[in-house]
Amino acid sequence: MTLFGSILTDIREKTPLVHHMTNYVTVNDCANITLCIGASPVMAHAEEEVGEMVALAGALVLNIGTLDTLQIDRMFIAAKAAEKYGIPIILDPVGAGATSLRTKTAQRMIQELSISVLKGNAGEIGTLAGKQAQVRGVDSGGVNGDPTEITCGLAERLSCTVVMSGPIDIISDGSRTLLCENGHPYMGRISGTGCMAASVIGSCAAVTQDYLSASATGVSAFGIAGERAAVDAAGPGSFKCRLFDSMASVRSDDVDRYGRIRSV
Amino acid sequence: MTLFGSILTDIREKTPLVHHMTNYVTVNDCANITLCIGASPVMAHAEEEVGEMVALAGALVLNIGTLDTLQIDRMFIAAKAAEKYGIPIILDPVGAGATSLRTKTAQRMIQELSISVLKGNAGEIGTLAGKQAQVRGVDSGGVNGDPTEITCGLAERLSCTVVMSGPIDIISDGSRTLLCENGHPYMGRISGTGCMAASVIGSCAAVTQDYLSASATGVSAFGIAGERAAVDAAGPGSFKCRLFDSMASVRSDDVDRYGRIRSV
Amino acid sequence: MTLFGSILTDIREKTPLVHHMTNYVTVNDCANITLCIGASPVMAHAEEEVGEMVALAGALVLNIGTLDTLQIDRMFIAAKAAEKYGIPIILDPVGAGATSLRTKTAQRMIQELSISVLKGNAGEIGTLAGKQAQVRGVDSGGVNGDPTEITCGLAERLSCTVVMSGPIDIISDGSRTLLCENGHPYMGRISGTGCMAASVIGSCAAVTQDYLSASATGVSAFGIAGERAAVDAAGPGSFKCRLFDSMASVRSDDVDRYGRIRSV
Repeated sequence: MTLFGSILTDIREKTPLVHHMTNYVTVNDCANITLCIGASPVMAHAEEEVGEMVALAGALVLNIGTLDTLQIDRMFIAAKAAEKYGIPIILDPVGAGATSLRTKTAQRMIQELSISVLKGNAGEIGTLAGKQAQVRGVDSGGVNGDPTEITCGLAERLSCTVVMSGPIDIISDGSRTLLCENGHPYMGRISGTGCMAASVIGSCAAVTQDYLSASATGVSAFGIAGERAAVDAAGPGSFKCRLFDSMASVRSDDVDRYGRIRSV
Repeated sequence: MTLFGSILTDIREKTPLVHHMTNYVTVNDCANITLCIGASPVMAHAEEEVGEMVALAGALVLNIGTLDTLQIDRMFIAAKAAEKYGIPIILDPVGAGATSLRTKTAQRMIQELSISVLKGNAGEIGTLAGKQAQVRGVDSGGVNGDPTEITCGLAERLSCTVVMSGPIDIISDGSRTLLCENGHPYMGRISGTGCMAASVIGSCAAVTQDYLSASATGVSAFGIAGERAAVDAAGPGSFKCRLFDSMASVRSDDVDRYGRIRSV
Repeated sequence: MTLFGSILTDIREKTPLVHHMTNYVTVNDCANITLCIGASPVMAHAEEEVGEMVALAGALVLNIGTLDTLQIDRMFIAAKAAEKYGIPIILDPVGAGATSLRTKTAQRMIQELSISVLKGNAGEIGTLAGKQAQVRGVDSGGVNGDPTEITCGLAERLSCTVVMSGPIDIISDGSRTLLCENGHPYMGRISGTGCMAASVIGSCAAVTQDYLSASATGVSAFGIAGERAAVDAAGPGSFKCRLFDSMASVRSDDVDRYGRIRSV
């Protein structure tokens, strides 16, 4: 078994808690996909308890999809607890580039917090890399420049793992860069696949400190699930139902066998 | 192709953003049905960004299903931005008639804002028309008086399109009135079909300024999807899954062929 | 027909409103399962209306899964209205034992409010009974001591019905104690089954003042639905879809025939 496959095995043995502070649109999907990969989701946000709950978790997923100033403050409280206890933070900067609040919040987070994995689409990652990028609502409109270079450069600058999601996911920690070609266009036809990918990466990052491998394993395993769910799907509703089924049935050796991860 | 069918074609060509400020119960369903009809959902509510996000959108959907005073204030900020940029506002006055807060908020919205489409059940529309109407929680208990006259009269008074949903949907802009008989009783057996109808109408209203036709197209296309989803559905769970599948597969010429829209 | 079966019949005849103040993760599932059992879900939280809405309801379900101080205040307002109008309160103390805020809030609720049914897992009920118990995030890690004695003792102390959920559900009002063996391990593989169980119990408690029987009927009917949904389920996504189908199709005489409820 490769490192990638062993990460999946470890999740299912340890069932780590993955703490989420996320948007109210896709939060249920995040909870269920976390269960499907074998981890245990938890959501809490009150100032009085969020640090205490994070301390129990193996990873903290921050998603700014429906942010407001109160939530931002609470995310910082949670993140400070995560830093204190050495818990990896996964940031999904949803809509960075679309509004000033989102761009500034994401920028502040990557500057002030110890992010382990920053995952976004081309527009979001491009925006945070300081490139000309297009973000339309929460959809990527692409980025000017070479995506791999941008991803790698941002990872180096931030000393973290950066994942630029897309038809080919680019994953870099600044020195090593991986490409993952798993996935299916159907994943863009339902709400929440980007958010769920962050939950899956968070589940992987909860069991290893090699966040590059954790991210590659996460996007690959989730992509394999998407490929399988798309087979014979009658439409987006059926696809979504099957996506959870598939994620729960992806095995460690499936990642080794069907994962299309390669170095560049 | 009729005007109704061409609206569906336009949505799929332009994929307009449809901004939602809605309840936390069915928000995920609204996001997914918006994707299924071919538009792109976006949700944001922070004072700092909501106007900026609305400015990017083709329509604004307001749904007071789980309102509070903070959300009401934010809805007014969003609505003012929509008015400034000429973006149609679709209002779903969920539960107007059930509590004083809901009734007053919906009344204030139709008085102070430029609503393009007001969509509710018989109890809600009846309440806003000043008739004796029954609303039980968020369910309609019917209205005293002729539903078509009430709908038409309210539309004329408000100078907007009013949709009274029911087994036969009544759609009026005060001068023209349409009836739509698409749909299936199964749609009342799951949570969120009313909310989703508003998302679908919003998607249609984002591509034409003929809001009467947009509303008729929306309720008809969604009703056709409901009819198809009900065939062989094993229960409400299966029905809901299929409803998304069906909505994604309703084609422009299906609306022309199977849409049961007629003038009165 | 037994009392248990007749409760299900009554729900479907009366379609009582079941008011929910619950978490944002599984709220949609709660709405849909309430519809499936034949009741009508309603969600509202604003101080200005929550009491007014509760007054219309047959039961109030409080779930602290994503609590904060503002929500706690609103829950107390709702609960006071429920007490005033003689409406049963079902409390799901999600995560009591995991954080101080959750433990203290749940303790305050059982002390200050007239709870009709307290439903939690072994860790949560054990915590509230003052036993050594383990709660990990929102998952039970078990309790030290005899679960039946703990449940019965807490019910006696609080003068309410206590449900300790698990592979065998324990239901006690302090003098009578029932065990229910319906259910399926699959129910632990999706998010929200615990929350949905409270909605189902709330639906039952809305039509009878025999809260012990209401609770037993609820967990049994929901368990039967789970057993049926698990047959041939391809995974958690399919299971969840089928769970709603099954819940909608459980008939009164199914509870009589397949309910595995016994006294101890």
